[in-house]
Amino acid sequence: MKKIVTFGEPLLRYSTSTGKRIEQSGELNIHYGGAEVNVSVSLANFGYDAYFIGKIPENGLGKAVERHLKSYGVHTDYLIKGGERLGTYYLELGAGERSSQVIYDRKYSSFAEIKLEEIDFEEIFTGAELYHVTGITPALSPALQELTMLSLQKAREMGVITSFDFNYRSKLWTHKEAATAIQPFLPYIDICSCGELDAIHLLDIEEITDEMDRELRLEHYYKEILKRYSNIKHLYSTFRDVNSASIHHLQGNYYYDGILYQSKIHHVDPIVDPVGGGDAFAAGMLYGILENLPCEQTVSFATAGAALKHTLVGDANQFSKEEIFSFVDQVSGKIIR
Amino acid sequence: MKKIVTFGEPLLRYSTSTGKRIEQSGELNIHYGGAEVNVSVSLANFGYDAYFIGKIPENGLGKAVERHLKSYGVHTDYLIKGGERLGTYYLELGAGERSSQVIYDRKYSSFAEIKLEEIDFEEIFTGAELYHVTGITPALSPALQELTMLSLQKAREMGVITSFDFNYRSKLWTHKEAATAIQPFLPYIDICSCGELDAIHLLDIEEITDEMDRELRLEHYYKEILKRYSNIKHLYSTFRDVNSASIHHLQGNYYYDGILYQSKIHHVDPIVDPVGGGDAFAAGMLYGILENLPCEQTVSFATAGAALKHTLVGDANQFSKEEIFSFVDQVSGKIIR
Amino acid sequence: MKKIVTFGEPLLRYSTSTGKRIEQSGELNIHYGGAEVNVSVSLANFGYDAYFIGKIPENGLGKAVERHLKSYGVHTDYLIKGGERLGTYYLELGAGERSSQVIYDRKYSSFAEIKLEEIDFEEIFTGAELYHVTGITPALSPALQELTMLSLQKAREMGVITSFDFNYRSKLWTHKEAATAIQPFLPYIDICSCGELDAIHLLDIEEITDEMDRELRLEHYYKEILKRYSNIKHLYSTFRDVNSASIHHLQGNYYYDGILYQSKIHHVDPIVDPVGGGDAFAAGMLYGILENLPCEQTVSFATAGAALKHTLVGDANQFSKEEIFSFVDQVSGKIIR
Amino acid sequence: MKKIVTFGEPLLRYSTSTGKRIEQSGELNIHYGGAEVNVSVSLANFGYDAYFIGKIPENGLGKAVERHLKSYGVHTDYLIKGGERLGTYYLELGAGERSSQVIYDRKYSSFAEIKLEEIDFEEIFTGAELYHVTGITPALSPALQELTMLSLQKAREMGVITSFDFNYRSKLWTHKEAATAIQPFLPYIDICSCGELDAIHLLDIEEITDEMDRELRLEHYYKEILKRYSNIKHLYSTFRDVNSASIHHLQGNYYYDGILYQSKIHHVDPIVDPVGGGDAFAAGMLYGILENLPCEQTVSFATAGAALKHTLVGDANQFSKEEIFSFVDQVSGKIIR
Amino acid sequence: MKKIVTFGEPLLRYSTSTGKRIEQSGELNIHYGGAEVNVSVSLANFGYDAYFIGKIPENGLGKAVERHLKSYGVHTDYLIKGGERLGTYYLELGAGERSSQVIYDRKYSSFAEIKLEEIDFEEIFTGAELYHVTGITPALSPALQELTMLSLQKAREMGVITSFDFNYRSKLWTHKEAATAIQPFLPYIDICSCGELDAIHLLDIEEITDEMDRELRLEHYYKEILKRYSNIKHLYSTFRDVNSASIHHLQGNYYYDGILYQSKIHHVDPIVDPVGGGDAFAAGMLYGILENLPCEQTVSFATAGAALKHTLVGDANQFSKEEIFSFVDQVSGKIIR
Amino acid sequence: MKKIVTFGEPLLRYSTSTGKRIEQSGELNIHYGGAEVNVSVSLANFGYDAYFIGKIPENGLGKAVERHLKSYGVHTDYLIKGGERLGTYYLELGAGERSSQVIYDRKYSSFAEIKLEEIDFEEIFTGAELYHVTGITPALSPALQELTMLSLQKAREMGVITSFDFNYRSKLWTHKEAATAIQPFLPYIDICSCGELDAIHLLDIEEITDEMDRELRLEHYYKEILKRYSNIKHLYSTFRDVNSASIHHLQGNYYYDGILYQSKIHHVDPIVDPVGGGDAFAAGMLYGILENLPCEQTVSFATAGAALKHTLVGDANQFSKEEIFSFVDQVSGKIIR
Repeated sequence: MKKIVTFGEPLLRYSTSTGKRIEQSGELNIHYGGAEVNVSVSLANFGYDAYFIGKIPENGLGKAVERHLKSYGVHTDYLIKGGERLGTYYLELGAGERSSQVIYDRKYSSFAEIKLEEIDFEEIFTGAELYHVTGITPALSPALQELTMLSLQKAREMGVITSFDFNYRSKLWTHKEAATAIQPFLPYIDICSCGELDAIHLLDIEEITDEMDRELRLEHYYKEILKRYSNIKHLYSTFRDVNSASIHHLQGNYYYDGILYQSKIHHVDPIVDPVGGGDAFAAGMLYGILENLPCEQTVSFATAGAALKHTLVGDANQFSKEEIFSFVDQVSGKIIR
Repeated sequence: MKKIVTFGEPLLRYSTSTGKRIEQSGELNIHYGGAEVNVSVSLANFGYDAYFIGKIPENGLGKAVERHLKSYGVHTDYLIKGGERLGTYYLELGAGERSSQVIYDRKYSSFAEIKLEEIDFEEIFTGAELYHVTGITPALSPALQELTMLSLQKAREMGVITSFDFNYRSKLWTHKEAATAIQPFLPYIDICSCGELDAIHLLDIEEITDEMDRELRLEHYYKEILKRYSNIKHLYSTFRDVNSASIHHLQGNYYYDGILYQSKIHHVDPIVDPVGGGDAFAAGMLYGILENLPCEQTVSFATAGAALKHTLVGDANQFSKEEIFSFVDQVSGKIIR
Repeated sequence: MKKIVTFGEPLLRYSTSTGKRIEQSGELNIHYGGAEVNVSVSLANFGYDAYFIGKIPENGLGKAVERHLKSYGVHTDYLIKGGERLGTYYLELGAGERSSQVIYDRKYSSFAEIKLEEIDFEEIFTGAELYHVTGITPALSPALQELTMLSLQKAREMGVITSFDFNYRSKLWTHKEAATAIQPFLPYIDICSCGELDAIHLLDIEEITDEMDRELRLEHYYKEILKRYSNIKHLYSTFRDVNSASIHHLQGNYYYDGILYQSKIHHVDPIVDPVGGGDAFAAGMLYGILENLPCEQTVSFATAGAALKHTLVGDANQFSKEEIFSFVDQVSGKIIR
Repeated sequence: MKKIVTFGEPLLRYSTSTGKRIEQSGELNIHYGGAEVNVSVSLANFGYDAYFIGKIPENGLGKAVERHLKSYGVHTDYLIKGGERLGTYYLELGAGERSSQVIYDRKYSSFAEIKLEEIDFEEIFTGAELYHVTGITPALSPALQELTMLSLQKAREMGVITSFDFNYRSKLWTHKEAATAIQPFLPYIDICSCGELDAIHLLDIEEITDEMDRELRLEHYYKEILKRYSNIKHLYSTFRDVNSASIHHLQGNYYYDGILYQSKIHHVDPIVDPVGGGDAFAAGMLYGILENLPCEQTVSFATAGAALKHTLVGDANQFSKEEIFSFVDQVSGKIIR
Repeated sequence: MKKIVTFGEPLLRYSTSTGKRIEQSGELNIHYGGAEVNVSVSLANFGYDAYFIGKIPENGLGKAVERHLKSYGVHTDYLIKGGERLGTYYLELGAGERSSQVIYDRKYSSFAEIKLEEIDFEEIFTGAELYHVTGITPALSPALQELTMLSLQKAREMGVITSFDFNYRSKLWTHKEAATAIQPFLPYIDICSCGELDAIHLLDIEEITDEMDRELRLEHYYKEILKRYSNIKHLYSTFRDVNSASIHHLQGNYYYDGILYQSKIHHVDPIVDPVGGGDAFAAGMLYGILENLPCEQTVSFATAGAALKHTLVGDANQFSKEEIFSFVDQVSGKIIR
Repeated sequence: MKKIVTFGEPLLRYSTSTGKRIEQSGELNIHYGGAEVNVSVSLANFGYDAYFIGKIPENGLGKAVERHLKSYGVHTDYLIKGGERLGTYYLELGAGERSSQVIYDRKYSSFAEIKLEEIDFEEIFTGAELYHVTGITPALSPALQELTMLSLQKAREMGVITSFDFNYRSKLWTHKEAATAIQPFLPYIDICSCGELDAIHLLDIEEITDEMDRELRLEHYYKEILKRYSNIKHLYSTFRDVNSASIHHLQGNYYYDGILYQSKIHHVDPIVDPVGGGDAFAAGMLYGILENLPCEQTVSFATAGAALKHTLVGDANQFSKEEIFSFVDQVSGKIIR
């Protein structure tokens, strides 16, 4: 199978039970994830040889991350061990009008304190087909910003397809910091997950203030991006209408060769778990692109995967490609017995 | 109280927690049920002397089935003990667009391997008012097919009212197998639960392909059935609009003496548990028929019971007839305090 | 900070898990509350020196009430200890069309058997700014009816603002009993929570049977009340449209100086916990009134607090005033990360 | 099967999880029991037609008691419904040196407020073989004291074997009160569970202060009892050496026809649940006596049942007579696979 | 790392919570195991390239087995998919004097119905260092008996070290059946786990009835075995003194080159989980033998691993070799902080 | 009541369920503690006005610490808010021979990064009777080392009794670092918790290598300490014999006025929770000293409190002084009912 590499921070997530705040909680549920971890898990579920590059502490929490990855068949050959702690965050699950809240406790993590010389991308990319990283990784430290740059350049140099997801997190850096860091990456990118707000705030594309259908707006932004970065071949993003913390409407957008393809709108009601939808979508897009699926099918597959993800607890998508295809074909809620 | 007999397979059900797949589950919830078990529990809750006929292994799981039945007052005098295992199934609970999935592990069960000579229907039916069985029982083995036939004939012979629910399960047999088995039963049936698809696929009634209100379609099918089996006095079924795994709309239909009676539509949102609604509906219909309630009230009572069932975990309906009547009268969601 | 006094029965609440009836439950969840307890917790969360007056037995359950109050900073200096038992109730949580059910087991409680001489309101009210009590307290015993009257008179005499919430409970007394008891309180009240049904059934104001917008109807009733009790300065209540046990629509009404102010309508979907919304609303109204917020802001703040309450398990609201204000400003369901 | 009648208060028990005090508990486990309930469950498990006489409120808690009884096959034909509440108690589970603590909240229960005319013992005892009641029943009210007396007299009159267990509870009455109430019962008793302390404190038999083996002491007391009440044919009790809340040593004593028979000593380590051991022992004794087992076997069977009970959560013993006999024969801790 | 192969049935285990019988359980805990699965997990934890050979159904339960194996790094390349069901068993956890009970529901499993042609041992054993199988595998079907024989012969032929654990299960076959099946395997075995009872009942070695230290007895039996099967180089077993279901005393025995080596006695108090100790012991022995550790160290390591296993829930040992070595060096119960 | 001040780091503790390693855990239990937090909770339970000085982040975890303290009545007036994170640790609960393991994740906490100028001890100590701090506080940063010194000097200067507990943690600093930091504190200490190993390793008192009763050894070390620091009036420590992680034997030692007083030995079997025993002991000693109890009673009370603590989950002792005194008087394991 194709070798795929992702690079990012593994995270321990604590989440509350429905209807409890953190300060009311006598126990918290544990899930392991992180944007690039989640993408690698989905890609392994789809049958690829996914390799996750990151760093974990040598303790029970680090071991749990390793087991999590391995249980889905993600290769941990390049997983580095050492450092002080595992990046952690708390998810206070919302309900209805009350939003979910995230508290980050990820500073000083083993990954955030990684040093340049700890990773040898040349070895890692040997034989690889695709490399995926998100904007979270460079946000964590100057060294990680440099490593992200180096990795993209090296991947390009070695003929590995490069995939980048903006994944802007306002709790990690400002728009200005992110823009300065990310723009130099773009000339090295083949596949890019980028939304309207990313285009405006991180790529300084002028905001459209006239009334206009959002499909048309998105097309406009994508054209502007491609004017600057003609190397980018695939652009994608989702429209997520957040009715409440419990109900979202999700539509995938895929821009390829001058055409915007859209999936049907999935009504995710209820949102069982709000995390990991974007990662499931990205993984689905990468699958469709790698397998040269028709564009319509690619974006439908990816959005279906994202919609399914939100019906499960945990950051990781649990579905095989067969299950997602079958779901695309027939969406209902009947018991299958 | 009236003696009522049901005959079928008791089942152990394992279900996942919301948002978990089976392979993610470190524990599963247990409920005991089975179509005929569920009907007998509801009828016992309504005050009848319900007797359940089935077979359980002599171990803790068998004992659990017995306790389940007894706790609702279902008589277990004719419950047979022996054989190798208890029929089991897994319910992976769906959410929103993701359907619930059933994995059957019921082969080789004590009940499925029952032998003809183990049951003496003559003794069982003595003093009985009504006998209920569903299409699941004959689907389990040739012996059970024969036993079903014998039981219906014997009931008829002894003046016991007979009730049959098609309950077609595609994981147990094909349409063709079911049709061949079931059609010979029908001349012995007084009360029949039969839906549109049953009429088409199991009774080979020609499908209406013209656009037509579904009420009219159902009436048409019911008339066709009665042309062939004039012995059937009561026909009923539900319209279940499956918005998603979490939201269903439920309406009861009751055809009697040439008239179709319909209940109001219940909006079941959320579906707490998808199993057992049909059995609760059947039990409600039997209650109304046995008690000679007006037809409108019968179908309203039955549908209300089914709607209430879906708000509770477990296969068994928990409501007394007084509670269901009171629910029919006043449906709201206020706290009663 | 301002000293605020509330007076009522602390209650132990047992609640079922979603989809279970009491008789199916092998364990029940515990929360501590009571109308006046809940208001005092909210007011302490808003930064006031809240003092709760009540009585608890000297056992682990009494100690739990004390810990509950203290954990939010409610002062327990005047909490009386003794008597036989803690007032208890059971909440069978509804779902969809099935309503939540309450079973009271609060008779003979330490509080219900309190004696006149056990409370010295003169000492308690010294330095107090506001006193809040509800119609539940006088419903519990003749002594408590007398104590409520005495407390309101004493508060008035000492220049403490008085607040009364009708909180009619049909399981505690009849309309007639409540009317007889409550009407004499009203001349001593400054702030009053009173709904349409209270006006009709407890204050004997003639019911409007003509079709009329409910806003206009409420204004009419409020004007009638003020004709009789010109001492009342603030009147408020909510419109609660109960779609089902799982979905409510909530709007706050505040009548001040001849004008009815209304909040936006909050769509509470799902109702995580049906208890305590009215208490959260009352506490929010008291905050706005005490802080002289603009009337629009007062009713918006109060309704937002009530809507947020329903997204959490337990009787007590958990939110600070800053969190509620921030929620008023921006209601969505996005993850904040 | 033989008809056996027990008469007493059904109780709802809340228990803490290991290592939690009540005031720390956010949920409590529920079990249903009561001394006479427990005996009836054990006797039904042994195959008798056990009838439990008591009174339950008409709500979910009452229904739960009924289901509990029925699930074991205990007949509820004479179970009275009505009254205000179900008797309740809290069990704070001990560990090691820390004892378990009981908080009673059983006053004003449906059973405690029962009236003389509610029970017709003549009807109940028709066809009965044995009647069992304990000292808890008369401790609950004057009416229950009178009913206990009447029931014993009636049973005697109708030729029903009578069984009485002292079951002294210091939280319900004083030694003096109990002695006054119980002594008049004794002339009507055939089988009596009575310990050393009962003999001294409730029957005013002089305490032996000289050093003496406890077997000899017990024999002495039993002889004294029989001097006064020659009608008593069977006397029994346990020696329970309480090493800690987690470790007990249990030995059964059975005095019959002038001879004291003793079981082996069971080392119950750990005590999974401290409640119900005495009731399991009593039920075992009654079984042996009713079946005319050899005295050694009777006391061994009864003590084994009590020891087994302590390895299970809940008040009710779960074992069939076959399981207990098999346990008597071979006590080890190997996995049986 | 060395390639190691194990061959056996993967099992789904349901276990009760402490103090509950199966019929009392509303949920059961899930663990995946099986003797050969457990050995492969331990060996993977020790750093070997463990390959598990078995067969799983293509459903969520099969997928769970696969994830279980992969999460520990066990290779699933040769795991066969298909068939009807996953072998299942129920463990009713004992406590104190009450033994744990096993109910098997493993008939007709995917593995038990495996066919000869489904496995190609030649391919599997290529590059392998050691092959381990237990007496459970041949007990499951004639085909599996034949496959076991073939696999041992093929391993021998290809120079792979062979390891066999008697693992007699009386619920699967009789002594006579087992003896007939197993004796022909022994000429092909290098390493053998065999206890006193195996020697007597399965190898028909005459039982020593004279009083004799059990060490001497064991040595005697081992000498007799080696007289017959001089090919066996390593013999081992444990002495397990079962104080109760909660307390075991465990000592390892290793017979090599004419000398019996014994570990210290581990007092396992409490037994957290009774399953998997023998498998952990076997894996430890294989590690010591493969790594040529001194015999004393080998048996100490193996027994320590077994003792540690019993302190954890689940069938699989969770410890690395470093953790076990460190435990061997210093056994206490202090908190390490 | 007397004002008592403690100063230290509040900690969030995650603990596993019995028999699970961290990497096996899908949820973790939460408790809040820290040595000085625990002492302040115990002292508040005994009726003192305890003030805890520390620093918490402004998020849900910080709020939870505040609620924890307040719920026991600990004053939080001087609790500082700010900084990045709450100190965290993981407790993998041991069982039997397997020790409990602690993973610290407390670096960079709000408290560890506190600055000198954030605390005004002059204000804090006004009106205080006693000040307690442990060796953990100065181990966390140079600033905290300086603050500890300043606080002890200021307390002395203001006539506040000073109490210091060595509480050496090898995961925080070396013996040498601790000795250098702590020795300068000692001239300012009145009450000191110091064990044998502290005397040898941190005070450089020569180790006794001859065989000698440990009581005599301890006396010797204490005399040596007093030779150097004649200002110390009270010295205490426990002998803790660790049979296994599940069974400890605990004896308190109190050296006052040249005499060593010892409590009885408590057999703590099982250890429900290994954390917080030392803090409960210290709090008990402070109570006895502050109340001038006889020395025997002081050490008995303190040790009883520690023994009771180990029977409860969580870091905090839950017992009132009355409960502990009653436990001292009568230790058994009978149910109190």
